[in-house]
Amino acid sequence: MAKILCVLYPDPVDGFPQTYARDDLPRIERYPDGQTLPTPKAIDFRPGDLLGSVSGELGLRKFLESKGHKLVVTSDKDGPNSEFERELVDADVVISQPFWPGYLTAERIAKAKNLKLAITAGIGSDHVDLEAASAHDITVAEVTFSNSISVAEHVVMMVLGLVRNYIPSHDWVKQGGWNIADCAVREYDVEGMHFGAVAAGRIGLAVLRRLKPFDMKLHYTQRHRLPDATEKELNLIWHTRVEDMLPLCDVVSLHVPLYPETEGMFDDKLLSTMKRGAYLINTARGRLADRDAIVRALESGRLAGYAGDVWFPQPAPADHPWRTMPHEGMTPHISGTSLSAQARYAAGTREILENWLEGSAIRDEYLIVDGGKLAGTGAKSYGVGDATHGIAAH
Amino acid sequence: MAKILCVLYPDPVDGFPQTYARDDLPRIERYPDGQTLPTPKAIDFRPGDLLGSVSGELGLRKFLESKGHKLVVTSDKDGPNSEFERELVDADVVISQPFWPGYLTAERIAKAKNLKLAITAGIGSDHVDLEAASAHDITVAEVTFSNSISVAEHVVMMVLGLVRNYIPSHDWVKQGGWNIADCAVREYDVEGMHFGAVAAGRIGLAVLRRLKPFDMKLHYTQRHRLPDATEKELNLIWHTRVEDMLPLCDVVSLHVPLYPETEGMFDDKLLSTMKRGAYLINTARGRLADRDAIVRALESGRLAGYAGDVWFPQPAPADHPWRTMPHEGMTPHISGTSLSAQARYAAGTREILENWLEGSAIRDEYLIVDGGKLAGTGAKSYGVGDATHGIAAH
Repeated sequence: MAKILCVLYPDPVDGFPQTYARDDLPRIERYPDGQTLPTPKAIDFRPGDLLGSVSGELGLRKFLESKGHKLVVTSDKDGPNSEFERELVDADVVISQPFWPGYLTAERIAKAKNLKLAITAGIGSDHVDLEAASAHDITVAEVTFSNSISVAEHVVMMVLGLVRNYIPSHDWVKQGGWNIADCAVREYDVEGMHFGAVAAGRIGLAVLRRLKPFDMKLHYTQRHRLPDATEKELNLIWHTRVEDMLPLCDVVSLHVPLYPETEGMFDDKLLSTMKRGAYLINTARGRLADRDAIVRALESGRLAGYAGDVWFPQPAPADHPWRTMPHEGMTPHISGTSLSAQARYAAGTREILENWLEGSAIRDEYLIVDGGKLAGTGAKSYGVGDATHGIAAH
Repeated sequence: MAKILCVLYPDPVDGFPQTYARDDLPRIERYPDGQTLPTPKAIDFRPGDLLGSVSGELGLRKFLESKGHKLVVTSDKDGPNSEFERELVDADVVISQPFWPGYLTAERIAKAKNLKLAITAGIGSDHVDLEAASAHDITVAEVTFSNSISVAEHVVMMVLGLVRNYIPSHDWVKQGGWNIADCAVREYDVEGMHFGAVAAGRIGLAVLRRLKPFDMKLHYTQRHRLPDATEKELNLIWHTRVEDMLPLCDVVSLHVPLYPETEGMFDDKLLSTMKRGAYLINTARGRLADRDAIVRALESGRLAGYAGDVWFPQPAPADHPWRTMPHEGMTPHISGTSLSAQARYAAGTREILENWLEGSAIRDEYLIVDGGKLAGTGAKSYGVGDATHGIAAH
C-alpha cells in the first residue's frame, strides 16, 4: 500500500458549479510534435470538470483506493505545521502543481523518508529541489506538453491585451464611460512589431507559430538553434544572446525554466536595454524577473506593459506590487490550468501513477529526475544550468 | 473656399499625454491584398499621436487652412441644437468616424444644401443614409482597409480573452485574491474548437488567417465563396447559410455590414440554434444583435461569453445592459481606432480631401456612393441588401 499525498489549490469560493459553462472539450488528436496524449488505462472523471482543486482530487481517489492505496489531498502547504509537511513524513508519492506549489525543499526531502516519486501535475518542477531529489533517488516526473499549448494561448492573449490596451478599455465600460480617446491613447496594433521569444521550446515555439500570421517580425534566442525548416517556415531571426535580441524587440516573452542562471535575469540592467515602450510577458516563472525592477520599468515608461501569470511567492500576497503597478495585465497562475489542460494533466498523472504502481517504465518524456540524475525532459530543460534547489530553499 | 466639418470624439479626460507610450509605429509596407497604404502628398502629424479626438483634428488644419479652406471640428453631434447640426447647413464636406458617428440622416442631408462629400475616417458608413446621399448626389467615401487588421487583432484578443476567462481572472488580481479555481472553472483552451466567421471579407478573412495556427476548425458563411486556394490554405469549411454554420461552432464572430437584412439578425431564435456555451464576438455593428436577446442568452448559459466593441447607440448610455451583463468582455468602440489605425485613416482622409479639392479621382476602393449610386467598395459591401438609411433614421 502506498500513500499518495496530493497538494492542490483550494476549491472555488462559491463551490463547484451546478452546470459548467460548456458541455464538453474539443477532442485533441496529439501534441504538435507528435507525442501522444496521456494514455492511462481508464479515467474516472468527465473531461471539462474542475479536477485541479482539492475536491477535484485530479480524479484519482476511486482508482487509488480500489487498489488499496491511500490518497491524502490538501491545499495547506506552507510552514512546518502545514498538513503537507505533516503528511509528508510517511508519503511515498507527492503530487503538486506549479499553480499552488508544494515546495519540496532539501529540508523537507530529508524528512520524507519514504518518498520515491514526486509528480508535477502540469509542467515545471522548480518547486522541487532537484539536486536533493537526485541525491535521495526520488524520481521527479511531470506531464510534459499537457498544458504547453494552454500557456501559449495565454501568451498571445496577453500580447494582444497589452498592446491593444484591453483591460483599461474594459474598465471604462464598467465605469459607464465612452472614453474612446482615453482608451485609444495607449492602443496599438501588433502588426509589424518585433516579437522576441526568450527560448523557443514547446511553449515559445507555439507562441511564435501563433504570432506568425499577425505579420510580426519574429525573433528568438536560445543556445541550441531550431531546425532550419522551422526557422524558414516562421521566418525566425535567431540570436545567440538575449542581450542582442532585446534592443530590437517591441514585445518580449519569457520561456526559459527557472534555474540559478536565469533567476532575476530581467533586472534593472537588462530592462534598460529594451526599447522604450516595449511590452514584457512572463508566463514562465515569477523569479525570472526582479520584482521591483519591473515596477520601476513600468513607472518610468521603459516598459509600456507587463503581463503574465507567474509570481513569487505563490500565492502572491495581497500587497504584492504587481497587483497595483501601472499597465499590468496579470492573472493568477492559471495559464496552464484551464479545464482543457486539467483533463490532460489529470490523465497524465494517472498514467504516471499506473506505471509506477505496477513497476513499469514512466515515459522518458515525462522524466525530470530519475535514477539519481537529470533524465529525459529534465536533462533538456534544466541541464543547461545547475539543477534547481527549489525556490523555497532560497 | 470649402467648409469642412469634422465630427471627432472628445479629447482624453486627462488631456493629451506629455509622452506617448511608444516612440514610433512599425512601418507597414502594404495591405494584405496588395492595396497600397494611403498616399497623401504630405502629412502634418507624427504617426503614433492621437489624431482621432477633437484636438487631434486628424492632422488636417494646417493643410486645409493653407489652401484657404475652413475647418470646423466638434464632438457635439446629437440633437437639433448640436454644433454638428448647426454647422452642417453650409458645410461642403463632412468627416465622421464610426466610433463617434455624426449621423447623416435623410433629414439632415435635406438641410445640408452645400454637402458634396461625406468621408468616413475609418470603415463603415452605416451612420450615413446612403439612399439619401445618392439622391442628393453626395459622394460617400471611406478609408478602406485602414483599420481592418486592427479590428481583426481585436477579435482574436477577444476570442482568447473570453475562452480563457481573462478579465474575471484579472479582477481576482485586483481584489488581492489567488483564486485559481474560481478563474479556472470557466477557462478553456481554444485549441480544437470550431470557429465560425459570419462573412469573410477583409476583416473576417484576417481573423480566420490569424486563428489558423491555434488549431481551431475554421468555418465561414457568405454568399460568395472564397477562392479555392484560400479555402485550402486555411482549411475552411464554407456554409451557404448562417443557420447551417451556427450549431457547429464554439466561437462565432460577426463581420457583416449593417443593413436592413442583417439588422437584429442575432435574436432569440438564431441564438437558440447555437451550441450551449458558445462565445459570440461582435466588432461589426451593435445592431446586428438584439440587445436584450444577448443578455438573455448570457443569463441562461446559452452563450458562455459575449465580447465586442460596437453598441447602439454610440456613445452607449451608462445604463446600457451590455455593461453589466454576465460574462462580457466589451470595450468601447475602439478596435479600429488604435494609434496605428489613426495614422492610416488620417492619411487616407487627407488623400481623399486632396483628390476632391483638386478635382482628381478618389480611389475606387474608397468609394461607397458616387455619381448617385453605390460605387466601388460600397457596391460590394452594401449592395447585397438595400442601401442603409442611416441608423439614426430608424
